[in-house]
Amino acid sequence: MTIASSDVPSSDVIDAVLGSVRFDAAGLVAAVAQQHDSGEVLMVAWMNRDAIEETLRTGRVCYWSRSRGRLWRKGESSGQVQQLIEFRLDCDGDAVLLQVDQSGVACHTGRRTCFYRAVRGGGFVNVVDVTVDPQALYKF
Amino acid sequence: MTIASSDVPSSDVIDAVLGSVRFDAAGLVAAVAQQHDSGEVLMVAWMNRDAIEETLRTGRVCYWSRSRGRLWRKGESSGQVQQLIEFRLDCDGDAVLLQVDQSGVACHTGRRTCFYRAVRGGGFVNVVDVTVDPQALYKF
Repeated sequence: MTIASSDVPSSDVIDAVLGSVRFDAAGLVAAVAQQHDSGEVLMVAWMNRDAIEETLRTGRVCYWSRSRGRLWRKGESSGQVQQLIEFRLDCDGDAVLLQVDQSGVACHTGRRTCFYRAVRGGGFVNVVDVTVDPQALYKF
Repeated sequence: MTIASSDVPSSDVIDAVLGSVRFDAAGLVAAVAQQHDSGEVLMVAWMNRDAIEETLRTGRVCYWSRSRGRLWRKGESSGQVQQLIEFRLDCDGDAVLLQVDQSGVACHTGRRTCFYRAVRGGGFVNVVDVTVDPQALYKF
């Protein structure tokens, strides 16, 4: 699950990336994960310096879990990993876009994307079906 | 620039949406804007309760500007407005996905998207061209 060594950014490049990110007071930056080919927005999570460095070095997306207070290697318990295709930073450095190849589903509910609730006339509607039994996601 | 009155969510629906959002300690939630047809991720910004309510009522995207400390009706100075196509909320309510129709460009640099810097072997590379002279964006 690692990228080819020739594609791993050098330490200088990683330092340059980290130097361009404007982390918030908690040392975090918002990260959007997008399926690289379909364009589907899968989820939003948070990264700290270590999560960015690990993601760039390994090619497998790693976030910072605010609820657990530790690095969160996406898929570590569910198997639904995200392979990094491209790392982008926005104009003012306070948001990251991760173009990824998502294995299976991004959402713990068993849906492809976490953004499955849409506002329609009568209220929230679930517009994305469950494709994997969520109980099956966390059995290993 | 308003949506058809039949498409405007009722006050009850807007209250239900606001009740489902988990705002942070500053009363904000991260919002991703995505071009509804191309799938391009345009920008990430922040919304408070008033910004969400105005966006849903008018169909024109309104954010909260953290730097200016006030509501920011996207395009109010540049003319590059975002028409709301669909409002989505993620599974745990702490991120919003706005599927929009972006007039012109989303980025103050004159690029279609704010995510124009990509990490490549040698460092950051600008992968999105400037399509509108940024000086022309702010003349009115």
